[in-house]
Amino acid sequence: MQPSSALPARITMLSGGVGGSRFAQGVRHLIRRSATSLTCIVNTGDDMWLNGLRVCPDLDSMMYGLAGVNDRDRGWGRAGETERVSAELVAYGVGADWFTLGDLDLGTHIARAQLLRSGLGLAQVTRRLSERWDLGATLLPATEHEVETRVRVDEETTLHFEEWWVRHRAALPAREFVHPGAAEAIPAPGVLEAIRDADVILLAPSNPIVSIGAILQIPGIADALREASAPVIGLSPILGDAPVLGMAAQCLRAVGAEVSAAGVARHYGARSYGGLLDGWLVDEQDAEAVAGLEDAGIAAAAVPLLMGTDDLTADMAQAALDLAGRTGR
Amino acid sequence: MQPSSALPARITMLSGGVGGSRFAQGVRHLIRRSATSLTCIVNTGDDMWLNGLRVCPDLDSMMYGLAGVNDRDRGWGRAGETERVSAELVAYGVGADWFTLGDLDLGTHIARAQLLRSGLGLAQVTRRLSERWDLGATLLPATEHEVETRVRVDEETTLHFEEWWVRHRAALPAREFVHPGAAEAIPAPGVLEAIRDADVILLAPSNPIVSIGAILQIPGIADALREASAPVIGLSPILGDAPVLGMAAQCLRAVGAEVSAAGVARHYGARSYGGLLDGWLVDEQDAEAVAGLEDAGIAAAAVPLLMGTDDLTADMAQAALDLAGRTGR
Repeated sequence: MQPSSALPARITMLSGGVGGSRFAQGVRHLIRRSATSLTCIVNTGDDMWLNGLRVCPDLDSMMYGLAGVNDRDRGWGRAGETERVSAELVAYGVGADWFTLGDLDLGTHIARAQLLRSGLGLAQVTRRLSERWDLGATLLPATEHEVETRVRVDEETTLHFEEWWVRHRAALPAREFVHPGAAEAIPAPGVLEAIRDADVILLAPSNPIVSIGAILQIPGIADALREASAPVIGLSPILGDAPVLGMAAQCLRAVGAEVSAAGVARHYGARSYGGLLDGWLVDEQDAEAVAGLEDAGIAAAAVPLLMGTDDLTADMAQAALDLAGRTGR
Repeated sequence: MQPSSALPARITMLSGGVGGSRFAQGVRHLIRRSATSLTCIVNTGDDMWLNGLRVCPDLDSMMYGLAGVNDRDRGWGRAGETERVSAELVAYGVGADWFTLGDLDLGTHIARAQLLRSGLGLAQVTRRLSERWDLGATLLPATEHEVETRVRVDEETTLHFEEWWVRHRAALPAREFVHPGAAEAIPAPGVLEAIRDADVILLAPSNPIVSIGAILQIPGIADALREASAPVIGLSPILGDAPVLGMAAQCLRAVGAEVSAAGVARHYGARSYGGLLDGWLVDEQDAEAVAGLEDAGIAAAAVPLLMGTDDLTADMAQAALDLAGRTGR
């Protein structure tokens, strides 16, 4: 790894939940003992009201992961979780039995709903909830507006993304993703500033459609990326023909994108051609895609993209910064 | 005990929480294997929104007690309770650390708040929550309006009853009890009918000021009792000079009532003189009060009033029914 003197002062990252959280932990590991700041703009399209409580799956995954209280084996939620409250809700016939609400997790949802109802915006609420932990990063919701990612499964029916994803295990073919209310939404306080003032902008290896893509649906955010002085570097969430995590393949197919490292990069587009990307990291097994991407105006490199340990993930972050240095921005 | 053929068809009872629940269990024990129905009109003055959740201490105590899932040792809440969620709320700095919210109990509060927000009234919500259990009684909230019992502790300050009771252990002298919004409230659906159609009406040995008294603050309920065809029989919550449970003494003193079995009866008043009571049961140790009460127009008897077992409590209920038979109504 490079010495920290070579680190940029401000890193801003766009992120989904679980994969984004693991990547953020690697970035944090890379910038430890440096003056570099990390700001994470987090997808809020999966958020939902459930039993009168506000659940923000991606903000929660980011917070728990960075706080070190996430369940690493299960891949989501809190470690040492129990479901006593949830069992009561099901017994009363009011629970959504397809969505697990752990007891520790419920503490977050109750606190968040209460703070929101007291009149705070989601950015302030996220700051309040984060104060309890030593995150080493600032979490910003993409927007404070309630813009749900919904999945069209037939002519008449759309489902909340979490219902499609968790309840139906993405088994119903997705025809398109819609974001009702997105046109009227604005970025949360701090989001545009974090993009404008960044020295490097990273797109985490999160789902390009429903995580990063949902962030980009909020008016002003994609434009801010295009206008940013910092290079925008993405990390492929697809290795070979499989996503690192989750069901990105189904999402990519639904929007007609190719399920490959290069396909995702083309989906984002080259910044020099009106797209978003200055650079793109692919996994070693996708090294043959590098030349084509470079030809298409996207600086590219092939490095190991498996987030096994914080050290390995920090190497990925370092490779992204190295690639940023090559973009000439 | 009398054979059940002598039981009235319909018993309606006014009740607070913990003591009322124990008494209701005794009534239920008495009427088991009979066709007698038991309807409990339950105090809602202690209800509160806490962290965006609706807590109804007396309805909860009634439900848990009749369901047999209450914590008998502690005297309130659910048996086998844990406080994992509550600890999270405190860690986030949003919990009310003076009010214990158990995990199982929270299931009730979350479900209730959710059902209320979905547009159901508290009576319907109470029925929905009760469906899960085999209560052997119908629970009715006194009102669906949010009428808090508040305690005036000085010229400028009133506290929610639960804050005064639980947080301050009733240590701040109560100057008066106020019920903001009571004048605009109406009885919950079913309450007036349950009083009108009853064959016997019982006042549980609950706190006469903040439990039974708060019910009587809801316009229409006291009048319905005065106009009921059924006899109204109360059980003294004071034995000697001490309440069976809780801190009724402080409450009685605050309204200038004598802390004695006869004092509580005089507080309710004789129905023949515009009060509420046809009959009043005092504990054996207060037998000397019987003659004076009879002189004041209140049929009275002295029997053991300790609710040790369901059998003993059923004997109290039977004594109340026997006294009702003597009132001539």
